[in-house]
Amino acid sequence: MNNDEDAVSGNSKEDSKEKKHPLLEGLVDAQALRTMSRSDLTALAAEIRDVLCNLLATRTAHFASNLGVIELCIALHCEFDFQKDHLIWDTGHQVYPHKLVTGRYHEFPSIRTRGGLMGYPNPSESVYDLFMTGHAGASISTAVGLRSGDLLTGHSDRRTVAVIGDGAFPSGMVFEALNNAGELEDDLTIILNDNKMSICPRVGAVATYLDRLRSNPYYTGLKTEVVRLLEHVPMFGDPTERLLAQMKEGVKAGLLGGMLFEELNIRYVGPIDGHDIPLLRKYMAMVREMKGPVLLHVVTEKGHGYKPAAEDPVFFHTPPAFRVEQAEDAATPSSGCPPFTLHARNAIAKKMAEDDRVTIITAAMCQGNKLEPIREQFPDRFFDVGICESHAVAFAAGQCKMGLRPIVDIYSTFLQRSYDQIFQEVTLQDLPVVFMLDRAGLTGPDGPTHHGLFDIGYLRVFPNIVIMAPGYASEVERMLDAALAYDHPVAIRYPKASALELDRNIEPVEIGKSERIREGIDGTIIAFGSMLDQALAAAEILDGDLDVGVVNARFAKPIDLDMVHSSIEAGKFVITVEEHTKMGGFGSAFVESAVERRLDTRQVHCLAIDDRYIDHGDRDELLAEQGLGAKQIVARCREAAGLVASYST
Amino acid sequence: MNNDEDAVSGNSKEDSKEKKHPLLEGLVDAQALRTMSRSDLTALAAEIRDVLCNLLATRTAHFASNLGVIELCIALHCEFDFQKDHLIWDTGHQVYPHKLVTGRYHEFPSIRTRGGLMGYPNPSESVYDLFMTGHAGASISTAVGLRSGDLLTGHSDRRTVAVIGDGAFPSGMVFEALNNAGELEDDLTIILNDNKMSICPRVGAVATYLDRLRSNPYYTGLKTEVVRLLEHVPMFGDPTERLLAQMKEGVKAGLLGGMLFEELNIRYVGPIDGHDIPLLRKYMAMVREMKGPVLLHVVTEKGHGYKPAAEDPVFFHTPPAFRVEQAEDAATPSSGCPPFTLHARNAIAKKMAEDDRVTIITAAMCQGNKLEPIREQFPDRFFDVGICESHAVAFAAGQCKMGLRPIVDIYSTFLQRSYDQIFQEVTLQDLPVVFMLDRAGLTGPDGPTHHGLFDIGYLRVFPNIVIMAPGYASEVERMLDAALAYDHPVAIRYPKASALELDRNIEPVEIGKSERIREGIDGTIIAFGSMLDQALAAAEILDGDLDVGVVNARFAKPIDLDMVHSSIEAGKFVITVEEHTKMGGFGSAFVESAVERRLDTRQVHCLAIDDRYIDHGDRDELLAEQGLGAKQIVARCREAAGLVASYST
Repeated sequence: MNNDEDAVSGNSKEDSKEKKHPLLEGLVDAQALRTMSRSDLTALAAEIRDVLCNLLATRTAHFASNLGVIELCIALHCEFDFQKDHLIWDTGHQVYPHKLVTGRYHEFPSIRTRGGLMGYPNPSESVYDLFMTGHAGASISTAVGLRSGDLLTGHSDRRTVAVIGDGAFPSGMVFEALNNAGELEDDLTIILNDNKMSICPRVGAVATYLDRLRSNPYYTGLKTEVVRLLEHVPMFGDPTERLLAQMKEGVKAGLLGGMLFEELNIRYVGPIDGHDIPLLRKYMAMVREMKGPVLLHVVTEKGHGYKPAAEDPVFFHTPPAFRVEQAEDAATPSSGCPPFTLHARNAIAKKMAEDDRVTIITAAMCQGNKLEPIREQFPDRFFDVGICESHAVAFAAGQCKMGLRPIVDIYSTFLQRSYDQIFQEVTLQDLPVVFMLDRAGLTGPDGPTHHGLFDIGYLRVFPNIVIMAPGYASEVERMLDAALAYDHPVAIRYPKASALELDRNIEPVEIGKSERIREGIDGTIIAFGSMLDQALAAAEILDGDLDVGVVNARFAKPIDLDMVHSSIEAGKFVITVEEHTKMGGFGSAFVESAVERRLDTRQVHCLAIDDRYIDHGDRDELLAEQGLGAKQIVARCREAAGLVASYST
Repeated sequence: MNNDEDAVSGNSKEDSKEKKHPLLEGLVDAQALRTMSRSDLTALAAEIRDVLCNLLATRTAHFASNLGVIELCIALHCEFDFQKDHLIWDTGHQVYPHKLVTGRYHEFPSIRTRGGLMGYPNPSESVYDLFMTGHAGASISTAVGLRSGDLLTGHSDRRTVAVIGDGAFPSGMVFEALNNAGELEDDLTIILNDNKMSICPRVGAVATYLDRLRSNPYYTGLKTEVVRLLEHVPMFGDPTERLLAQMKEGVKAGLLGGMLFEELNIRYVGPIDGHDIPLLRKYMAMVREMKGPVLLHVVTEKGHGYKPAAEDPVFFHTPPAFRVEQAEDAATPSSGCPPFTLHARNAIAKKMAEDDRVTIITAAMCQGNKLEPIREQFPDRFFDVGICESHAVAFAAGQCKMGLRPIVDIYSTFLQRSYDQIFQEVTLQDLPVVFMLDRAGLTGPDGPTHHGLFDIGYLRVFPNIVIMAPGYASEVERMLDAALAYDHPVAIRYPKASALELDRNIEPVEIGKSERIREGIDGTIIAFGSMLDQALAAAEILDGDLDVGVVNARFAKPIDLDMVHSSIEAGKFVITVEEHTKMGGFGSAFVESAVERRLDTRQVHCLAIDDRYIDHGDRDELLAEQGLGAKQIVARCREAAGLVASYST
């Protein structure tokens, strides 16, 4: 912690006894904001901005989005009392200013480090964090639920606020929530934080629509007057009058904008400048008192107050620690080898160059999956649909029917959002969509909302799908080859980690066949995907004591039955290792097959992730904690072989 | 087949040699419609209506929705050439007229019976069926994908049409698709089939909005003229002119309606009468030639042409065979015992009466889950959010936070649509939402889109959740008791089947504890949920030959480890039985636990559903085919015990 605190004060260690952030340091509770002077609030915003710029210089973290919501966050805490009222930050990575004003300034340097603050809202940190968020689009639904709960339990005086970005807004469940909110007509405040960005440059008709709303030059005085006049036009029941009434509504809509929301019975207010605290407070006070659901459109600038970030918000979404000497790539782990993500991107680009049936579809993961060069090179076959995973997968199914070979490139955890489309549109129709599941494993500092630990289990239940995972770098491309040559759905999973570089003279990957990397007579380690490096390292460490074979399993479905037989029939121990929850993972598939074939499983040991949500932290540390580091595998081998473990875990 | 064909001709067996449906009988391909006379098309509509009314008198099937789209279907096949163009019927249960005009008249009597036509579109039946649908909302996404594929493969002359009902329209993925379609601006025809209904009376702000559009008295002449005039108002760049332009757009919107779509860059046309074939053709010809995405709003009447159905479309959604002598309840299987659905409903109603924290949330499954009496009795705590499962689950999470105890009552297969919300909003936050998973098993005549065979696998991967299944009727309420008394997420699964009635003097259900129903020394059958009846029947049949114990497993997570130990340690065979895919199901959880505890699994046999999509058919037949009937279990026991099987499977 001391090191981290030093990091915050940056180069000015000599100042460490002066109060660098006097307002924040004294701020034990957000309640205090409600009585602060206008100038103090401005000073507070500057302090928050300073903390963010200093911290983020030392740490990969969400940056531009947090700089953009400082004033919005302050105004919210001024105009609402979130000890009583409810606040949900959709998606959640813009929660840093909120953490700073809700008594977490002193812990703030620990953010996104093991044991420290989480980079997302976390109810176990503060009563001000109601839901742990990280996946986009749920805030309005949960807010409608909270309001419904307040009404049923006699707390109708509480206010409920959902803050949602324009990037998250097109998510399907937002529309479902608006559809319900518009009907229920319960009081609800939706703040649309419009920074003209998703994680990637934003896309879609909603984005274009918001652009149009923002260009409205008459969001004050005049239009209010016109509307007031129109309110006095009388209405009657006959058709002509109804036409008149409709024209009136139309004129109102044209002036006010926001018809998309108004048509759903959501009052639309805005757009307003999201960096003007007094203006924000004025409008928040207004919408707070409105009956029924209301949406306040706030325009913010991602990276506001830090020029480089405002100018390149894509880079500054989660920039590497940008002041440290050697710029470190966010997706490059410490080992220095290029990450799986990069090998995957290169393989995809190669296939697209070779075969013009191959398209790529992503859901706002263009940056995370390093797809920018592909977008440049193949603009016609590159489809970023925004944070709309359900649509992405069904859209891919449509392309398949026309003979294309779409690759859906999405994080493992976000693919959960298209689960029913994987079922109906892909596996039921048996269409050859290739899923590239990035971040399939422990993702490190993002924590439980971003770890990809469930995909083997949730995909394996569906007929027709093949699930594979590369164990080393050069396998990525060959797996993609195999997937594209295969006429059924395929998922290829790999973690946010460097890819092991193995110098192997390599045959094509055959569906359902594993690869033996190392012979050994005392037992076998069967590694699924990324765990191959730890497995080989463990075998090396054991060398001399125990002669352990290592298998690169490659397939979780269909599992290589010959491999299951041969590893068990050797009569020695078998240890499966995977970066996935133990419930329904590769090990589970292995023992399922073994039992079905009446094999003796008493010497089979399955190493996998515990059945609990795993906190954020360094991936290597987390792996070790989960018993998946080389040392821990060594200990398990010794135990399984009946030796006393000589290596501590 | 002969019996079925008799059924079609109803009471008029003597007429069977006359052509009852001369046009349909001669219609080998839908192409013929394109040149039929207006009067023949009208006669064809009458023939289709006759076929539907006669068939549906003998069979539980989707009825009112099919009667409502006869003219729409005819007009589509007149104005498009679906040998070349693409047609997707969203949700798919309204596909009967389409089947009749695409050469399936003679097979039609077999619909929804084993080996016969499917009750949904099925690409293996006809080139006119492009996607197998059944879950709502995917049509626009797949259509956008098809169109994208056409453009990339040089087939830009093809037209793509998605037909979607107003009930499916609020599904989140529809919004995601519109967001993408509005941006891509590729040609696309969306037919909104507005029959003022979901499966249940429809709900939500979109529904209210469509009501408003339908009330527009000026959908012809006048408004077209006004719009034309407005088109000639010049536009300039300065703010005042822009205001004028906005006013103009507003007036246009007020006149034309459809701003919700227009704002997303989707041209809106309509509403028009969906039972007037010439009018439908005229508008279809018009939208067919439009550039970019266009939505044609067609108003139909569910049950049109059959008065009782038009008057009560909820009952006539999937009515029981309404002319047979003894009215059979759609959810009551042949055994005569009340179905699990009814026990669940009664248990829910009882809990809601006892505890006012208990709410119920469903997603248009009010009729299917027999919830109407609850809606009547507890209108404040009953929430039907429409076909919006993602929202339903996140909404429940919000209610939990306020101290309520929501029960989410959704079909197993449709819960897949809220998978990411089960992850983030429920299990990650560890909130006590109770999921009642109806139709968890083989659902019979609906087929693969409706079977609920994956829920154990897809839920078990998530930490914190408990998964249970009642084996007999009186257990349903006790499981709900246990779930509501437990402070974590719980899923209770049960099939569309009658519930075994066991006369047991019963203790409360304890989380993670199984129940031994029958002692036996030669081996154990471990039944999960609904398979208890078959397991007990098998044990009875074996009695005398083999003394087999039967365990009611109750929990798939956490699994009862004492039970795992004791059943295996007895040293005799263990057979697990479940109505779920074998991949990642109860048996998988059982062997996973056994292996972890180093137990000998060589005598463990897991009976479950094959890893392939299962066709429609009678549930009992399908169970037998899958080796899950009592006779098949008997055979497996004999085999496991080393006896010669004396019962054939």
